[in-house]
Amino acid sequence: MSKNVYFFGNGRADGTAEMRNLLGGKGANLAEMTNLGIPVPAGFTITTEVCTAYYQNNRQWPAGLEEEIRENMKKVEAAMGKGFGDVNNPLLVSVRSGARVSMPGMMDTILNLGLNDETVQGLIKSSGNERFAWDSYRRFIQMYSNVVLGADHSKFEAIIEEKKKERGVTLDNELTAEDLKDLVAQYKAWIKANLNREFPTDPWEQLRGAINAVFLSWMNPRAITYRKLHKIPEEWGTAVNVQAMVFGNMGDNSATGVAFTRNPSTGENVFYGEFLINAQGEDVVAGIRTPQEISLAASQQWAKENGISEEERKAKYPSLEEYMPECYQQLLELRKKLEGHYKDMQDIEFTIENRKLYMLQTRNGKRTGQAAIKIAVDMVEEGLIDKKTALLRVEPEQLDQLLHPMIDPKAKVTIVGKGLPASPGAAVGQVVFSAEDAERWHEQGHKVILVRTETSPEDISGMHVAQGILTARGGMTSHAAVVARGMGKCCVAGCGEAVVDEANKKVTINGHVFKEGDWMTLNGSTGDVILGQAPLVEPEIAGSFQTLMTWADEVRTLQVRTNADTPHDAKVARDFGAQGIGLCRTEHMFFGPEPERIKAVREMILAEDGEARKKALSKILPYQKADFIAIFETMKDLPVTIRLLDPPLHEFLPHDRKGQEEMAKEMGIPVEKVIEKVNALSEFNPMLGFRGCRLGIIYPEIFATQVQAIFEAACALAKKGQKVVPEVMIPLVGTTGELQKIREYSVKVAEEVMAREGVKLEYLIGTMIELPRAALIADQIAEYADFFSFGTNDMTQMTFGYSRDDAGRFLPTYVEQKILKDDVFQKLDQEGVGQLLEIGLTKGRATRPNLKVGICGEHGGDPSSIEFCHKIGMDYVSCSPYRVPIARLAAAQAELKNPRRK
Amino acid sequence: MSKNVYFFGNGRADGTAEMRNLLGGKGANLAEMTNLGIPVPAGFTITTEVCTAYYQNNRQWPAGLEEEIRENMKKVEAAMGKGFGDVNNPLLVSVRSGARVSMPGMMDTILNLGLNDETVQGLIKSSGNERFAWDSYRRFIQMYSNVVLGADHSKFEAIIEEKKKERGVTLDNELTAEDLKDLVAQYKAWIKANLNREFPTDPWEQLRGAINAVFLSWMNPRAITYRKLHKIPEEWGTAVNVQAMVFGNMGDNSATGVAFTRNPSTGENVFYGEFLINAQGEDVVAGIRTPQEISLAASQQWAKENGISEEERKAKYPSLEEYMPECYQQLLELRKKLEGHYKDMQDIEFTIENRKLYMLQTRNGKRTGQAAIKIAVDMVEEGLIDKKTALLRVEPEQLDQLLHPMIDPKAKVTIVGKGLPASPGAAVGQVVFSAEDAERWHEQGHKVILVRTETSPEDISGMHVAQGILTARGGMTSHAAVVARGMGKCCVAGCGEAVVDEANKKVTINGHVFKEGDWMTLNGSTGDVILGQAPLVEPEIAGSFQTLMTWADEVRTLQVRTNADTPHDAKVARDFGAQGIGLCRTEHMFFGPEPERIKAVREMILAEDGEARKKALSKILPYQKADFIAIFETMKDLPVTIRLLDPPLHEFLPHDRKGQEEMAKEMGIPVEKVIEKVNALSEFNPMLGFRGCRLGIIYPEIFATQVQAIFEAACALAKKGQKVVPEVMIPLVGTTGELQKIREYSVKVAEEVMAREGVKLEYLIGTMIELPRAALIADQIAEYADFFSFGTNDMTQMTFGYSRDDAGRFLPTYVEQKILKDDVFQKLDQEGVGQLLEIGLTKGRATRPNLKVGICGEHGGDPSSIEFCHKIGMDYVSCSPYRVPIARLAAAQAELKNPRRK
Repeated sequence: MSKNVYFFGNGRADGTAEMRNLLGGKGANLAEMTNLGIPVPAGFTITTEVCTAYYQNNRQWPAGLEEEIRENMKKVEAAMGKGFGDVNNPLLVSVRSGARVSMPGMMDTILNLGLNDETVQGLIKSSGNERFAWDSYRRFIQMYSNVVLGADHSKFEAIIEEKKKERGVTLDNELTAEDLKDLVAQYKAWIKANLNREFPTDPWEQLRGAINAVFLSWMNPRAITYRKLHKIPEEWGTAVNVQAMVFGNMGDNSATGVAFTRNPSTGENVFYGEFLINAQGEDVVAGIRTPQEISLAASQQWAKENGISEEERKAKYPSLEEYMPECYQQLLELRKKLEGHYKDMQDIEFTIENRKLYMLQTRNGKRTGQAAIKIAVDMVEEGLIDKKTALLRVEPEQLDQLLHPMIDPKAKVTIVGKGLPASPGAAVGQVVFSAEDAERWHEQGHKVILVRTETSPEDISGMHVAQGILTARGGMTSHAAVVARGMGKCCVAGCGEAVVDEANKKVTINGHVFKEGDWMTLNGSTGDVILGQAPLVEPEIAGSFQTLMTWADEVRTLQVRTNADTPHDAKVARDFGAQGIGLCRTEHMFFGPEPERIKAVREMILAEDGEARKKALSKILPYQKADFIAIFETMKDLPVTIRLLDPPLHEFLPHDRKGQEEMAKEMGIPVEKVIEKVNALSEFNPMLGFRGCRLGIIYPEIFATQVQAIFEAACALAKKGQKVVPEVMIPLVGTTGELQKIREYSVKVAEEVMAREGVKLEYLIGTMIELPRAALIADQIAEYADFFSFGTNDMTQMTFGYSRDDAGRFLPTYVEQKILKDDVFQKLDQEGVGQLLEIGLTKGRATRPNLKVGICGEHGGDPSSIEFCHKIGMDYVSCSPYRVPIARLAAAQAELKNPRRK
Repeated sequence: MSKNVYFFGNGRADGTAEMRNLLGGKGANLAEMTNLGIPVPAGFTITTEVCTAYYQNNRQWPAGLEEEIRENMKKVEAAMGKGFGDVNNPLLVSVRSGARVSMPGMMDTILNLGLNDETVQGLIKSSGNERFAWDSYRRFIQMYSNVVLGADHSKFEAIIEEKKKERGVTLDNELTAEDLKDLVAQYKAWIKANLNREFPTDPWEQLRGAINAVFLSWMNPRAITYRKLHKIPEEWGTAVNVQAMVFGNMGDNSATGVAFTRNPSTGENVFYGEFLINAQGEDVVAGIRTPQEISLAASQQWAKENGISEEERKAKYPSLEEYMPECYQQLLELRKKLEGHYKDMQDIEFTIENRKLYMLQTRNGKRTGQAAIKIAVDMVEEGLIDKKTALLRVEPEQLDQLLHPMIDPKAKVTIVGKGLPASPGAAVGQVVFSAEDAERWHEQGHKVILVRTETSPEDISGMHVAQGILTARGGMTSHAAVVARGMGKCCVAGCGEAVVDEANKKVTINGHVFKEGDWMTLNGSTGDVILGQAPLVEPEIAGSFQTLMTWADEVRTLQVRTNADTPHDAKVARDFGAQGIGLCRTEHMFFGPEPERIKAVREMILAEDGEARKKALSKILPYQKADFIAIFETMKDLPVTIRLLDPPLHEFLPHDRKGQEEMAKEMGIPVEKVIEKVNALSEFNPMLGFRGCRLGIIYPEIFATQVQAIFEAACALAKKGQKVVPEVMIPLVGTTGELQKIREYSVKVAEEVMAREGVKLEYLIGTMIELPRAALIADQIAEYADFFSFGTNDMTQMTFGYSRDDAGRFLPTYVEQKILKDDVFQKLDQEGVGQLLEIGLTKGRATRPNLKVGICGEHGGDPSSIEFCHKIGMDYVSCSPYRVPIARLAAAQAELKNPRRK
């Protein structure tokens, strides 16, 4: 017969951390700590195999299990110096489930098992605290009745309420030992009357019931649903952990606390923790009493900050270092031992029962991004871990916190609404409701928050000058969100609670009305909309950050480029380590800053024939050329991929009557003509309409002019001795014919410009792969493409048939109901869209083995998506400037997890 | 050395029809006819290999070619009894290119080669017609100078014009022999002066030049472009055909004519043709003189129809049977021989030179659909061909002509505009501009044509009562087109020339104004919009049609279902041989006929919560149930696939102010509330929005009600003893979770209904595969699907990123520029979308080997798409009722070409 029960205690455990499958996560960890010589309350683990056998065996215990349990209980009694059911010095135990992987909320814990009318007297004796003993007993009955006997929790609450009313008190802890004793009697009476049975008094019967309840919890509907959602096989089963109770609330020689082995906020290598004398674990968390600092230094610092004298501090709030120096020393040693063993910062829980220290839990501690970096880099320097481990230790997403201003975490703020955390950071400003107003207020020296129902390319100039953007509609990849992330500007998008009244210049959010000029604060990292001016803090980028980035660059094989449309964005990205521009959108250049730009664009759109169109385009040419010169200059010798015009033309026309009138006036044409054109260009589904390379087929002169501008810019710099390698990218290709034709005339224009300028440049002409069809026929497309750049925003839209601007009506529900694991516009859908990427890449490289392949959708900045791109063999990812460091780290992690280097 | 030149003439040819690759299409056919003993003017073919060698050999003739040509020319001279360059009886030849596949317009033909100042005299002698001879000579110089010497064609035209002015005449044929002789002299002088050379007088030099010109034409830009577009390899090369000229215009003993071996219009087995005495081939086609009938019977019939007396007929328009009885008899024999050999109706061209009959061409004759069927069936009965050949002989698309009324082909009509031939057939009616007007006029007994800028589901009832529909916007798969085809109703869509002024009830098409009540005729087969009332003819469906369909059904392995939403459509389709309904759209049922329907739907949409929604749905339930009962009853025991609600909800709300006011009034709510809801539901890209199964996830009660109606209907009929197998189809599934959840509650509803009704039904729950992602993860989806139905309309939209309603702005150009071979909404894009279908089917069957798979997009009625569906292994196609016979034939052909049956 195989071993069913694994003991841990007194520095020796039957199991180890490796036995997770057999002992469950909790059981294996308790065994591991015990083996490390860490003082853990003794106990034993019933294996997951027993659970499986229990179900296979018609819900009966396997033969011999009871004996094994009894043997192990004896070991626990010996280790703890108490007796299970002993009326003088009773051993109480907790019973908990513990599967291979954590399944939160699967079963409630049963504490204080072993109490009955006799043993409670023993507990009174050993604790010297009658109230504590009776309170423990009444809690046990309540918990056990609910979890094991199936009684409704609220029944007991009702009995307590009745008692409190009778005693004229309002809080549970105002009840006396006598009251609690009476409650125990009432509980038992209720059970007898309603469940038609006695509450079990035999500790062994209690234990059997509790163990069975854990087994049965494996099949409760909550657990079944959880397993289904997380694809956990039913046959894994759960282990059962039975562990001796220890009490930090047995008097002034007892205490309980939590600590981090380093500062989880800054990463500093100092011991950091709090404790409470004569308290239980939950008291520390509940915050009813002020916890005390563990170390003397921290305690003194705390007193200073709170204006408490050293005398008062010593008297009322001594540190553990002073109050129980021997326990403190022991903790210091454990801190070192745990970090040495787990090679990571630990978050520990401890309890001191009558001056004896017990560790209840240790786990890797949560930390801020800043702390994560500092700890990882410090630990390499301390020789605890290697660089590889350090790189894997920091969540790339955590870096985001370091790259934007934040709301002072200490500040109290009034959150009035919540939207999507569309672009991180925080912003404070005065509310305005149009791009023009934003510009006007900005010119007058105000900081503004631009509030719109939704934004469109016409709002770009207003977004540029705003501190932050709030929209009522649109998702994580709506125009506002994408543009704001590109600018590294705080944005809260799709705040459905906001009713924007642009005409009357006000927005109402859950009853709060903001008029033009009112102060508002946005938290783009959380989606919070905050009343007034919250204090901001600039993030401190410590030296460790730079160190970690250098290590990441040493490791990664995937290049990181940026999506940047302006010299400013390009500069930011370059400073953040971008290795080129992967996507330079040319359409944003069509709006401001000079009003002549959009005017010329509109002239082009209104043109009746190719000649008139060319004339208008010739006015746009010098602006585009200047833009490209500025960007090439900023990026120096790094590659720059420029995408030719992508959006439908109607995006450049005003859609409101006022704007149309202004345009008509400016262009000297009747407003009817403007309206007619707007109507003629309007589409049922613009996303699937006349845009991208379709423009370049119907109006070749548009693309030709852009190509001319690119090459004139490149030639101008080449003449000054700068190396420029322009990469021209054709958007929305779905057929070989489109690319072939556009490539043909683009090459012609490029060669003409170079001949005229007397300059010979290397250049590439490639395409976006953003339509399913393009991926499917990538072998043919690659014949005409020097590079592929996967546009995963559109690819996601087409593959799912989701419009990112409209999906808000169902996508959140899909994620909530787990129909989708994530928002597919944020994290690449590897299962579906990923197949198309892989097909496209494989087929493309089959035709052209050295085809350069990258990704330039929003997913280019998402760590899990970056890992996917690395795995399938892409050359680069391209993302918003502010996500470049995140991508660098994610790329390094991807290489470490899936090495390409031999 | 291999043979370079292949002779044909005098009943013996070196080549055969099988030698197409070597001799080109024309050469092989001339050889074949010669071998059949058909009197073909003698000649020879220089092989395609010579062309290739010519290019490989620096544009030199291979050694020995000249000798071979001379030898073969001798054989031609012998066969024709004339001499090449003979001054008394000159042999003239034509020189033509001839590649493996026909490449129209690659090179102009050179005729009359061999003429010079001496041989022209011989031609005068042998023809006895001086003017003819000089005219032939001057034409030859003109043609040769242009094609071989590269002279500009217009120069010679200018010289003729000058001559005509000088002679005071306006037509070429008013010039005399003397004039033409002078032209020859002027031409030669021009050549000398401008091309700096003499016009070649040596017939052999002429011939060498002509042969080289043919070779060189293979590499001219026109040919290169044509080959690129049609993927014809350059190395195929072209053959050169040199053939003796014969003349039907040598006098009254000469003639020329064309004939069909059977009537190409009706298919009747009678000889059918026309001829002209003393004329050239082009004169018959040009229609300058009235051609005469070949057979006496036809001649007499013609005279009768044209009121010509027998005497006049005999004198002026004798039949060939009377005029040259020996030639007529020879033609009759050739007719039999040709049909016996080619096993198909032939279209022949012949020339009689001095009472000697020559055949110049024979090819399979073009014919109407009716003729195609009759000929194919007749030929089986005559033992000429087998059933398989008969089935392959009829183009499925040709059947379309037989299934709709047509405009009388003899009628003269005034075409005022042209749109897309969106739904075939013809319609005459009085113009109306709204669905309501259509209904009102219809009730008053008028026939109406509904004219709209575009249609929407609100127009359905108006479309139902209209004879035909004309829209100004939308493509072949726009709402109007799809619905009209489904109804088998004539529709011209996307007529961009039509400016519809719905407010003032008029439409202007190229200056023609139609007001309400004006008569209009539509030709949905051609897209023509016609002024007034054109006469219509009802198609005659001969017995052969039924026979052919029976044969098709014997052969095919692919089932044919129909897309039908009403009992009427279902009945039509069943009569046409549909084997079930593959797509029954439920949304059309939400509109009329009873106004309570749409009212209840709108109540549902306005509902604030699930309860209110359920209440509204309960009003819809009985209507839906009644609809399903009617359809099930019509289809009897055949399967019916019902698709749950697919379109976005806003399609059910009025979008114009008037409609919104009416709705508000009817529902007793303020109009603002209606507008608010319309705005709330409006989407940027409705095609990619909140529709299909997304509705069924967010508002499960909608789908649940539909499922309830389906099963209540099925149970009601089952109780009456009818076998019903409902197939519930979930639209727009993109994730397994969607299907899993909707399946779960649908099964629950179905089981509840059946339990309540005490009936146990077989039923299937399946899904549309219409999103790229669904195809990519079809293995997972198949776990929850009893069947797949590919929705290729949406699949095409998503795969290409085309909105079918907006693609009109670029798709026609794409087809024109050959970027796309066809309109991908009409013919399935096998290359791209086809890959997804194959992936979906293969993955689906991997999970569920017996998965039933079909297609229900518009492509289900297109023959090439049907062949694809057959090839990849689908079980069925589903198409509009009126395309069912087409699909049956196409499916038979698919099986014959790609047998599934062993």
